[in-house]
Amino acid sequence: METVVIALGGNAVLQPGQRGTFEEQLANVATTARAIRLVLEDGYRVVVTHGNGPQVGNIMLQNEEARGVVPPFPLDACGAESQGLLGYMLVRSLISELRTHGLERAVVALMTMTVVSPEDPAFQNPTKPIGPFYSQARAMELIVQRGYEMREDSGRGWRRVVPSPDPLEIVEAATIRRLVEEGVVVVASGGGGIPVVRTSDGGIAGVEAVIDKDLAAHRLAEVVDADVLLILTDVEAAALNYGTPAQKDLVGRIPYGEMLRYQREGHFRAGSMGPKVEAALRFVGSCRGRKARRAVIASLYRAREALRGEAGTCIVGDEV
Amino acid sequence: METVVIALGGNAVLQPGQRGTFEEQLANVATTARAIRLVLEDGYRVVVTHGNGPQVGNIMLQNEEARGVVPPFPLDACGAESQGLLGYMLVRSLISELRTHGLERAVVALMTMTVVSPEDPAFQNPTKPIGPFYSQARAMELIVQRGYEMREDSGRGWRRVVPSPDPLEIVEAATIRRLVEEGVVVVASGGGGIPVVRTSDGGIAGVEAVIDKDLAAHRLAEVVDADVLLILTDVEAAALNYGTPAQKDLVGRIPYGEMLRYQREGHFRAGSMGPKVEAALRFVGSCRGRKARRAVIASLYRAREALRGEAGTCIVGDEV
Repeated sequence: METVVIALGGNAVLQPGQRGTFEEQLANVATTARAIRLVLEDGYRVVVTHGNGPQVGNIMLQNEEARGVVPPFPLDACGAESQGLLGYMLVRSLISELRTHGLERAVVALMTMTVVSPEDPAFQNPTKPIGPFYSQARAMELIVQRGYEMREDSGRGWRRVVPSPDPLEIVEAATIRRLVEEGVVVVASGGGGIPVVRTSDGGIAGVEAVIDKDLAAHRLAEVVDADVLLILTDVEAAALNYGTPAQKDLVGRIPYGEMLRYQREGHFRAGSMGPKVEAALRFVGSCRGRKARRAVIASLYRAREALRGEAGTCIVGDEV
Repeated sequence: METVVIALGGNAVLQPGQRGTFEEQLANVATTARAIRLVLEDGYRVVVTHGNGPQVGNIMLQNEEARGVVPPFPLDACGAESQGLLGYMLVRSLISELRTHGLERAVVALMTMTVVSPEDPAFQNPTKPIGPFYSQARAMELIVQRGYEMREDSGRGWRRVVPSPDPLEIVEAATIRRLVEEGVVVVASGGGGIPVVRTSDGGIAGVEAVIDKDLAAHRLAEVVDADVLLILTDVEAAALNYGTPAQKDLVGRIPYGEMLRYQREGHFRAGSMGPKVEAALRFVGSCRGRKARRAVIASLYRAREALRGEAGTCIVGDEV
């Protein structure tokens, strides 16, 4: 039985243009649960991970609006809240979807921390915008009062930027591995995992950072020694010359070396397709020759077809 | 090796009079983690559960304050956020506490749902106050606009009241049992678990309710077939005639039948010692003759002594 790590994109929970009510999000998650059920019916072991951008953004906004009455929490704590929220929604929807189709698999969401290095260069160069937009005046106040790094965001206002360090290790790795081996459908590393660093005394401490969910999904795929990393998003496939008249979707099997060349040519944009391709290449590249692995980038709505090789971009080892 | 379910009271995370900053809560959780580490060093398998009252109250207040910019979420979703938050804090602190003392046990927090019956009489009679205090005028608006049940709370203002149904079943029971058997320290059923009902098509749906965390701890103790249910709180023991000049602490071993008599005489107040004694009696009473079980009610700071029989109220089966 093959193991697949499914990395859900933002559209798995919230569609562009929606306000973000709980009912809207639950309805989207129900559609996502259906896609995952079809994969389970095809006989895979499944591990699910997901982003948390809009949800943690809203929680930070709530923290901000209520700061006169409730002490605001740091980013790692807000991330934990969003991980709990999304874990609940996904597990509840998945169990409902499975039971109403006669499937009895256990499904759980594990609170998950991701270890990063305090030496990661990202800490010297925060790039990931998070939370609400501010006026320039308020942004200057926040820089002084709270030491935030703030950047002007393409004419829409000022936003806080935080480091996005590379995920090194999942604290709960051994437990995740064990549960997956036992056939449990595990939801883990939500929002890329809550970022922590190891302290000199052997403990762990939270850090204010955001971990890319696709790179975290690669780490998760290593932990469970997955056969497939399936990255689901809102487009049909990775593309060359994306958004230009010369756009060409990369549909079907693409050898590792070829995909690496496209990456180096700059075809995949930072913050959108870039980290997905990077995660896919890390996954396929880390086991060359040892085991036939593949990474698939496809539309959320074609998860089953993508795993069957009928949709999406499928990156395979050169030897395969 | 004996298995103990530790039910943490509110003081394990937030002390009376504190504002509730993240730093304050983390410092309290570090003390709690120390108490749990001492229990682990005495050779127990440990399952941890906890309340979420102040945390979910703050999240609801944040939802309320930000409702103009972020759609507010229902109680089950806010509960999931608080479960994630507290799970993160507890696991992070416990791992740090264990590692810095040379213990290598795996620790995880599982998102947990608790099944209640839609027929539970509590749904006809909501009694549990939650969230912020309101003026009478605003309370009347909320009754009309959102269908809330609101009650005046001892001169401090109006509060929403929600049902507190009996916990019947833990959705993630099988996984929790397995992890505990494998020696993992599991944090589960936070805040009593997210309340759900089974739907007629075999699925599950969230409900706006609050589950008593001590009664949920009893349910958890049944799931893992615990030997001890240890309920930690801010007093040294259960007491007769509590808060009167005739107060008498129940320290040491109390047979089941004797404790049941005290309960029926009305010694234990609803909303404070009442549910702790009820959970203890359910736990000891449900296995009379089959296995020597005990339930202990004690101070958070004397967890180890309480398990050694040197502190707190220890309720034992009549035959023991």
